[in-house]
Amino acid sequence: MPFNYRLKDIAEFLELELIGSEDSVIHSISGIDKAVSGDISFLANQRYAPLLAVCKATAMILRPADSHQFKGACLLSSDPYLSYAKLSGWFSEAPKKLGIIHPTAVIASNAHVASGCSIGANSVIGAQVILGSNCYIGANTCVGERSSLGSDCYLADNVTLYHDVKLGCNVTVHSGAVIGADGFGFAPDGAGGWEKIHQNGGVIIGDKVEIGANSTIDRGALNDTVLGNGVIIDDHVHIAHNAAIGDNVAMAAYAAVAGSTVIGENCVFGGNSAVLGHLKIADNVHLTARTTVTKSIKESGSYSSAGFPLMESFKWRRCSVNFGKLEKIHHRLQKVELDQE
Amino acid sequence: MPFNYRLKDIAEFLELELIGSEDSVIHSISGIDKAVSGDISFLANQRYAPLLAVCKATAMILRPADSHQFKGACLLSSDPYLSYAKLSGWFSEAPKKLGIIHPTAVIASNAHVASGCSIGANSVIGAQVILGSNCYIGANTCVGERSSLGSDCYLADNVTLYHDVKLGCNVTVHSGAVIGADGFGFAPDGAGGWEKIHQNGGVIIGDKVEIGANSTIDRGALNDTVLGNGVIIDDHVHIAHNAAIGDNVAMAAYAAVAGSTVIGENCVFGGNSAVLGHLKIADNVHLTARTTVTKSIKESGSYSSAGFPLMESFKWRRCSVNFGKLEKIHHRLQKVELDQE
Amino acid sequence: MPFNYRLKDIAEFLELELIGSEDSVIHSISGIDKAVSGDISFLANQRYAPLLAVCKATAMILRPADSHQFKGACLLSSDPYLSYAKLSGWFSEAPKKLGIIHPTAVIASNAHVASGCSIGANSVIGAQVILGSNCYIGANTCVGERSSLGSDCYLADNVTLYHDVKLGCNVTVHSGAVIGADGFGFAPDGAGGWEKIHQNGGVIIGDKVEIGANSTIDRGALNDTVLGNGVIIDDHVHIAHNAAIGDNVAMAAYAAVAGSTVIGENCVFGGNSAVLGHLKIADNVHLTARTTVTKSIKESGSYSSAGFPLMESFKWRRCSVNFGKLEKIHHRLQKVELDQE
Repeated sequence: MPFNYRLKDIAEFLELELIGSEDSVIHSISGIDKAVSGDISFLANQRYAPLLAVCKATAMILRPADSHQFKGACLLSSDPYLSYAKLSGWFSEAPKKLGIIHPTAVIASNAHVASGCSIGANSVIGAQVILGSNCYIGANTCVGERSSLGSDCYLADNVTLYHDVKLGCNVTVHSGAVIGADGFGFAPDGAGGWEKIHQNGGVIIGDKVEIGANSTIDRGALNDTVLGNGVIIDDHVHIAHNAAIGDNVAMAAYAAVAGSTVIGENCVFGGNSAVLGHLKIADNVHLTARTTVTKSIKESGSYSSAGFPLMESFKWRRCSVNFGKLEKIHHRLQKVELDQE
Repeated sequence: MPFNYRLKDIAEFLELELIGSEDSVIHSISGIDKAVSGDISFLANQRYAPLLAVCKATAMILRPADSHQFKGACLLSSDPYLSYAKLSGWFSEAPKKLGIIHPTAVIASNAHVASGCSIGANSVIGAQVILGSNCYIGANTCVGERSSLGSDCYLADNVTLYHDVKLGCNVTVHSGAVIGADGFGFAPDGAGGWEKIHQNGGVIIGDKVEIGANSTIDRGALNDTVLGNGVIIDDHVHIAHNAAIGDNVAMAAYAAVAGSTVIGENCVFGGNSAVLGHLKIADNVHLTARTTVTKSIKESGSYSSAGFPLMESFKWRRCSVNFGKLEKIHHRLQKVELDQE
Repeated sequence: MPFNYRLKDIAEFLELELIGSEDSVIHSISGIDKAVSGDISFLANQRYAPLLAVCKATAMILRPADSHQFKGACLLSSDPYLSYAKLSGWFSEAPKKLGIIHPTAVIASNAHVASGCSIGANSVIGAQVILGSNCYIGANTCVGERSSLGSDCYLADNVTLYHDVKLGCNVTVHSGAVIGADGFGFAPDGAGGWEKIHQNGGVIIGDKVEIGANSTIDRGALNDTVLGNGVIIDDHVHIAHNAAIGDNVAMAAYAAVAGSTVIGENCVFGGNSAVLGHLKIADNVHLTARTTVTKSIKESGSYSSAGFPLMESFKWRRCSVNFGKLEKIHHRLQKVELDQE
């Protein structure tokens, strides 16, 4: 499991100036608080700068101004966190794309599997599916009829793509994620029950998108549900039918977008935040955790709608009761103000 | 992929009066804003009525009073949205029920599979399972021992039914949904740990129920968890052990019902709403998004308990702090009032 | 399906004093309100004591002080709920561990499968996996490379373990749960996009842990995500990368712990509660439902931050609007107070 990289090769890959021995061998990557000899580490947060003097790492990625504090080899970066991110893939032990199609995989005879694809045991590839080159399909994963993947996609084990789902290139989907299930569309049937609206749209996802474990992206009712390029989605996220998510949007766990809502580019949604249906959100909107957006947002900025300061429960219970009295409190205050005049 | 339906056949199926050419051919169904020649569309929301004059659809489902505004063929409906829902299935491209049992499916020798069933690749049908006629079981789906499905059920790919789960007829379950996992039952063991309470009940689900992707319906502890007829459930919903959900209840994404709670008929639960355990909710209760129900509700109506108006985060932070002072604010107001007297 | 146990054997297993016929035969276990002849039941909550006089159960587990109210056989327990929990497994009809490896399971040639293991149809066991003795692996379940399970683990159908996930002994994982998916780690790439941080840590889980359906426990970025012994986790729970969860913590549905947060022992988290990242929570902290923890908690106790009293929606709407005015209300109150002086 330990890796063996020459420090010079790392510096060249990251395009960083190296101060120290080019031939040092790096076995692992570690946080600054845990690094030992043979490790490379990084200083991204100045809060940890005092650890530089005592850190035993063989090499450190850091800003030039910090390099004098570290005795080992230094890789000088204007953005050490980004440099670390770029390097992190060198130390991954995730399953390799070996280009092997497991004999138990069930692949429709008219599916198109480009060169270099890996297909795991017991996966099921439907009719007319197109897999671009170098895709990885995990075990027990299903790709529905007519769906297509661009090159270099990675579907982990137990992923489900329904029919007519289109992924761009370099899309990663984690286990348990479901793309293309029916949107939640029903019409009252006039007799107290519900008439299902068949969801005849598809899902279109751009390039370089990542979708977390157990997230759901529903198919459109009439048109498609659309995710732009560079979108990153955590676990348990829900994108409802006909939503459109702009490029580079980031959504933390349990974030949700309801039906037909359009999200601008570069938005960041905190955990368990939600945007109601048929709204339009501008570019560069940040939602703090648990925020519920009930109307369209036209200006970029940070928005919130939920959460009190954390309190001990007995105190919170009294505040909560007073919340129920807020309207009366307001009226009583108005009366007091009038009486003072 | 394009369909070819005679307009006359559509009118007859929907039992609607047709104004225009019976022999027009319909290829697709579209929203009023996107419809082109060859499409059928519908006017459900009067807000879009101005589009009637310019819409290029070949045919339109609309109320009689609106028909004069549209130049193409008109299907006159007192409820265009319901007519659209009924027609939507004609334009579905979801996998067809072909009545084929894939050779890789693993079916217990004593399972009963009625005529017309489709069973997907690598699905696993346990001992003593009963599948009613014309059921569709997707790929990589598991049906546990002694579970039963009525006729015309549809389990998508990667669905899990545990043992002793009973579905009625015409039940649809989307990918990633889990029905019959253990309820969350543990007793403190007196030494700081937890003793598991085995969940020996089952799950009983009525007719014409739909369950969304990655939702969970846990099995009962002693008795069964029960869903009535016509229940519709979105993605990421959770029904805990021994809950009972009345007929035609609709639950949006992330809605949750805790253990042993009884929900009346025709309730509508907004996204991320939750009802705590051991409560009883009347018929026709509507919960707005994120509402937490902490006590039984005896009267039908709309209830809420969460969510402020959306604010810019810097303003919200100050309001939030003042919430923590609410009790004191109330007391100070009382004092001011007393002093005025 | 009915069981046949001698009451004497039950009393000996539970180590309880039996008053009544040792040879009574018990077929089932039931709640006190539904028990019939042939059943054993229990009185855990004094609220149900009045039912003792009319309950038809053959035997009852109850406190000695209550035994005079029941005419049938009595098993005297100082903690009837715990006694019931211990006994509940005798009446389970969950699939048995038969020690059979299904021929369709795909098991890497260098995986180690100890004696007594059951492996379900179409499951996939990766390279260098270690399964301890008497493990049960359900159908369509995947265990990634180099992962290991201690003895007596139970993975239900459609479970996903990624590579390098280490489970202790007696760990239960329900369907749809995903352990070891990538944590949500990305660095801004300086051009509006995101650079993925490969998640090179693993997951380590202690003994006697239970993980509910569709829950996710992400792998660490550099180090491991860790769950202690005796942790119990409901459905739809999310544990982010590098979190550490102390022994015997209980987390209800949708509870979430963000990245790098450390949770003490014996904490109890209500449904949909959440702890933000990089925090430290003391032992024995109780969070009520929906609480958001935004700062470290140093003292044990019960904490809250969310939820108003349930109101009718029209009233809640007015209170909610007044919340937005809270800062102004406070300022106006201050002014009134000053004017009074």
